[in-house]
Amino acid sequence: MLSLKEIQEIINNAIISNKFLNKPAELYEPVNYSLSSGGKRLRPSFLIMACDMFNGNIQDAVSPALAIELFHNFTLLHDDIMDKSPIRRGRPTVYKKWNSNRAILSGDTMFALAYEYMLKINKDILPDVLEVFNKTAIQVCEGQQYDMNFENNINISLENYIEMIHLKTAVLLAASLKIGAIIAKADKKDSELIYDFGINTGIAFQLKDDLLDCFGNEKKFGKKIGNDIITNKKTFLYLKAFDLADNKTSQELNNYFNDNNLSVDKKIKLIKNIYSELKVDVHTEKTMQKYYDKALKCLDAINIDNKRKAILKSLTDKLMDRED
Amino acid sequence: MLSLKEIQEIINNAIISNKFLNKPAELYEPVNYSLSSGGKRLRPSFLIMACDMFNGNIQDAVSPALAIELFHNFTLLHDDIMDKSPIRRGRPTVYKKWNSNRAILSGDTMFALAYEYMLKINKDILPDVLEVFNKTAIQVCEGQQYDMNFENNINISLENYIEMIHLKTAVLLAASLKIGAIIAKADKKDSELIYDFGINTGIAFQLKDDLLDCFGNEKKFGKKIGNDIITNKKTFLYLKAFDLADNKTSQELNNYFNDNNLSVDKKIKLIKNIYSELKVDVHTEKTMQKYYDKALKCLDAINIDNKRKAILKSLTDKLMDRED
Repeated sequence: MLSLKEIQEIINNAIISNKFLNKPAELYEPVNYSLSSGGKRLRPSFLIMACDMFNGNIQDAVSPALAIELFHNFTLLHDDIMDKSPIRRGRPTVYKKWNSNRAILSGDTMFALAYEYMLKINKDILPDVLEVFNKTAIQVCEGQQYDMNFENNINISLENYIEMIHLKTAVLLAASLKIGAIIAKADKKDSELIYDFGINTGIAFQLKDDLLDCFGNEKKFGKKIGNDIITNKKTFLYLKAFDLADNKTSQELNNYFNDNNLSVDKKIKLIKNIYSELKVDVHTEKTMQKYYDKALKCLDAINIDNKRKAILKSLTDKLMDRED
Repeated sequence: MLSLKEIQEIINNAIISNKFLNKPAELYEPVNYSLSSGGKRLRPSFLIMACDMFNGNIQDAVSPALAIELFHNFTLLHDDIMDKSPIRRGRPTVYKKWNSNRAILSGDTMFALAYEYMLKINKDILPDVLEVFNKTAIQVCEGQQYDMNFENNINISLENYIEMIHLKTAVLLAASLKIGAIIAKADKKDSELIYDFGINTGIAFQLKDDLLDCFGNEKKFGKKIGNDIITNKKTFLYLKAFDLADNKTSQELNNYFNDNNLSVDKKIKLIKNIYSELKVDVHTEKTMQKYYDKALKCLDAINIDNKRKAILKSLTDKLMDRED
């Protein structure tokens, strides 16, 4: 079986040898820029790893892995316009570096290119793979819309939040694993189990992100702690805090979130203090662990030798323990 | 064989019975709004017409026809943001009625929905159909990028312009016809011929649009004549005029196009006068007819009874003679 390092090498080599030199350059330049900006390559790694786990032919998984990475980067290009995010992976986002029109159209092209790479798959499994991929694409759009709705919605439950991150984040991770399994002609039940592993892991990962943004170690995290607090983002921590707080504390939280006279550092400190008093971090950690435990049960139930699951499990364990 | 009216009824019924009532409503509202706004439904009509022409089962063509209409409307949603177009088919465009974010994300969803409807096709022809569809999607993005490039580019040849409208407009019309032919299991050579018919007809249609915008009868055209002149759009007429003009006339044209003190009506009148002196309308008409003649030769070469081609030909004849 391949090591994580070998898998990432396969992906990076595929990206380098699939540079888009087509014309017009204005359209393909942002595609190459976006793909070359690195990132964890988690989704394509998941796809190849699942294929390898079920003893599939790795060569059959490379184009679909590229397809998943193209799709993921397409969503980032468009999300960054919608969320007005100026920086991604330490570099200007596409709409900032060029403009919104370039980011819209290059994003659209990446979406179409994702299908082009997915179509390189063996014809006999094409309908199954495309069904998963296409349903996922629609769900990711739905998740992004819910996320945008949350900005102006004051009545969001923790369940609403979990459903949003399920759609926006978890389904693509799950689909990557399932497509890898389908390519390897895994048993149908096992393909569903690895999908469910992906869903629960994906939710746990997002809760980890929410936690790190607030309670991470600034040096290890590598970026400013408290960004979600500054932008009043309705994360799991935010919603859990209001869920746990009595009337007085809720009022206090509201005041701090809406006080434009507070300095950034002061705002973060005051809100983090309340989060700590309410044990929001402990609660979030507990929920996160609950989802990861559910994920591991799914992995456990997959009907193959446990040794074959070890690389995937060691990667997700590492991501659950990460500090950045 | 079905009449044009019957085909349009099939399409309209399919659109009505495929309303998207999924959640979140914020995402699907613009999809329904866009699909319900009418238009000529030319692309899905072409698809069904081609299927019928080659004696295919019409029921197999309905979902792909919807897919093509969804794809076309997706491109309109995004193009309208990029081109800052406030009105389409007499109603506010999606980004004007809601906002850019809604138009970006609903557009993305329509693109994914287009694939969903295309996937309903019989499995045996799925790879062939998706190959055509996907290649077309990429080409349409390339065409839109060229169109945007032209705004800031002063060295555009007539050949560049034809290549741009080939990509932006003609390939989708051609793909609609070819997909209809594939569904009907038409001979491979005939599928290529109907594709080429679509390309040449599509280019001719765009030249007709360019002509009508400048030389149409305002009452019959139903909208303001000279819009392309006011917005300095580099249409076939614009490029042909500079191609034909001597130095003095080129200078004159440049002055009028860039004179912000001219009233709208005066600007149109002065430029149209030069166009008429240069016989730009006659030249455009001639080029348009050249492409349509090429199209008809392709149609003629298709190896089926001429009677089966009559409905398609009568539709394209009508569109070539249209005054609106």
